[in-house]
Amino acid sequence: MPARSARTSLARLGEFRLIRALSRRFGQAGPGVLQGIGDDAAVIRPSHGTALLLTTDLLVEGIHFDPGLASFEEIGYKAAVANLSDIAAMGGTPQYLLVALAVPPSGTPADIQGLYRGLMQPGRAHRVQLVGGDTSASRAGWFISITLTGSIQPGLALTRAGARVGDLVYVTGTLGDSLAGLCLLKPHGPGRRRPVRGSGAAYLIHRHLRPIPRIKAGRLLATRRLATAAIDLSDGLSGDLTHICERSGVGAEIEAAALPISSALRAYATAHRIDPVELALTGGEDYELLFTVPPRKEQALRQLSQRMACRLSCIGRIRSRAFGLRLNRGNGSPERLVPSGYQHFQHRRLRSTKAGGAR
Amino acid sequence: MPARSARTSLARLGEFRLIRALSRRFGQAGPGVLQGIGDDAAVIRPSHGTALLLTTDLLVEGIHFDPGLASFEEIGYKAAVANLSDIAAMGGTPQYLLVALAVPPSGTPADIQGLYRGLMQPGRAHRVQLVGGDTSASRAGWFISITLTGSIQPGLALTRAGARVGDLVYVTGTLGDSLAGLCLLKPHGPGRRRPVRGSGAAYLIHRHLRPIPRIKAGRLLATRRLATAAIDLSDGLSGDLTHICERSGVGAEIEAAALPISSALRAYATAHRIDPVELALTGGEDYELLFTVPPRKEQALRQLSQRMACRLSCIGRIRSRAFGLRLNRGNGSPERLVPSGYQHFQHRRLRSTKAGGAR
Repeated sequence: MPARSARTSLARLGEFRLIRALSRRFGQAGPGVLQGIGDDAAVIRPSHGTALLLTTDLLVEGIHFDPGLASFEEIGYKAAVANLSDIAAMGGTPQYLLVALAVPPSGTPADIQGLYRGLMQPGRAHRVQLVGGDTSASRAGWFISITLTGSIQPGLALTRAGARVGDLVYVTGTLGDSLAGLCLLKPHGPGRRRPVRGSGAAYLIHRHLRPIPRIKAGRLLATRRLATAAIDLSDGLSGDLTHICERSGVGAEIEAAALPISSALRAYATAHRIDPVELALTGGEDYELLFTVPPRKEQALRQLSQRMACRLSCIGRIRSRAFGLRLNRGNGSPERLVPSGYQHFQHRRLRSTKAGGAR
Repeated sequence: MPARSARTSLARLGEFRLIRALSRRFGQAGPGVLQGIGDDAAVIRPSHGTALLLTTDLLVEGIHFDPGLASFEEIGYKAAVANLSDIAAMGGTPQYLLVALAVPPSGTPADIQGLYRGLMQPGRAHRVQLVGGDTSASRAGWFISITLTGSIQPGLALTRAGARVGDLVYVTGTLGDSLAGLCLLKPHGPGRRRPVRGSGAAYLIHRHLRPIPRIKAGRLLATRRLATAAIDLSDGLSGDLTHICERSGVGAEIEAAALPISSALRAYATAHRIDPVELALTGGEDYELLFTVPPRKEQALRQLSQRMACRLSCIGRIRSRAFGLRLNRGNGSPERLVPSGYQHFQHRRLRSTKAGGAR
């Protein structure tokens, strides 16, 4: 990154020129787009018989990200994943992206271009197209608001409300890596990243900065009618499982020993004298899928796991609402599981809340 | 508005509680909504054979609005109109709304509720439904990002690119009122609104705070195939006409005497020794429609004007690209029309730029 004094200031470039350049670069209209960037609204060709998914996510500097700890490309990448992961959790296919961006006085064209480069990366494999946006000055800090559409066959969308007593609780991938990665980036208050030591640390930081949206897994869960409910893990397992339980009117029992924990996270936890189970329960931004599966469909799920291109772990079972939400540590009766999040670890990560297209 | 000390702080209310309350109040799922607020994404029933319109607008405190000059309800109202007007300019019917909101430490639940109340007002007549959103803390200032969807029959969408040499240039309503209203609210730098004197001033301020999105007019222009191109007047006539000319590869000649100017604006201009034509050319945020009509369709347009529920004025004609963009003041050869905006009036309103779903 060049020194600030060497940067071209945003004001000098001219906002309209910048937008035009971004449009040319990232917004070339592809299949399905009748009118892309450059008019009052984008016009999308009707797709026969599919329902429309709509989700929006807001990322605020100092709340959700810190340009001292991540490059603008990494920030953009993760902003896109937050939305792609919402579409994945519904079982849908992501399609069209709109980006509203407020740029502080310190923002440069290089920052904005990095951001867009990152934004377009995780959706590229799924042919997500940029069809619109809005850019403004900000008096203080960056604001990135993304809206993503998706498609799904009507009736197949995975909501949070369908979990039934007896269903098995599953997650994709491993849990808690992202939180440990954040801790490694930001050891003592704000400031620049510290150098990474060791492949385990590099892995955890990569998991924090470059999470994978589980689109293929979500789509298979929906189209094969394997899952009864699903959510993506943005707030952390205990919080997101609570959302499913509340919306489905059920409880759940989670087996601590069954939580998928990477060897890198286990090493990190040992070195820092933290229980890795706590990290797995409360760490946010893993963007893995949490879903429930009727026992009779377990075998069909196992047969598909290879096509989903990610590890699947059964971590517990849906119980009655009266049972509540409990964690079985294998050393007595299951303890009550309290929904928490990053606050637990004194990260002062102010939480954002989301409603509809909501995490 | 209660004194700041008497307000309930946002933090104390609890973000999740607030979101739930807003969801209950504003996000009740109606026709077409298979899954509304409260899941990872909204699910919208497919509508047969209609194309999807997508637009997004970002409003930033201190750039686009000043809570000292407008209530949160008025700010919300206008934020929604900016988007509704984009759908109107495409000839579409607005449908589903998503709202991403960053709230500064000073923000109260009453502010947010006022904002949502205002947001929902101008779309109510068109049954626009709130289906999602995201809320976050902001370290400084309010940020409101709105995404609105709309529907239109494929092939009927009005773009900026269809104007042809010989077409007549039309606008709805009157021009420049909003800028004069802003000047009346904000006479000398930042601060509270000053008291309004006289019905003319009240009218201009109302036009600034409560503009009308021309949805009915836009829809008739599209469905009756009357217009060849359209845009909504958010930046001001000279700037927005430039967008049409650039995209259509044409020029235009505007007749100063034909510009529709309200009697209130004329009185304001006289009192302040400003040429009302300048206000009409450069004033932004009127949210009227600017559109082009082939001469053979002029009579059909006139016959429909009553159903459009707004005044229609022919203000000029599309010329060749070589002719450029000119203003005929009737006192010699037409002068070159320079695209400008609020800067002209030293309002220091930093411009926002928009791309795709763009103004």
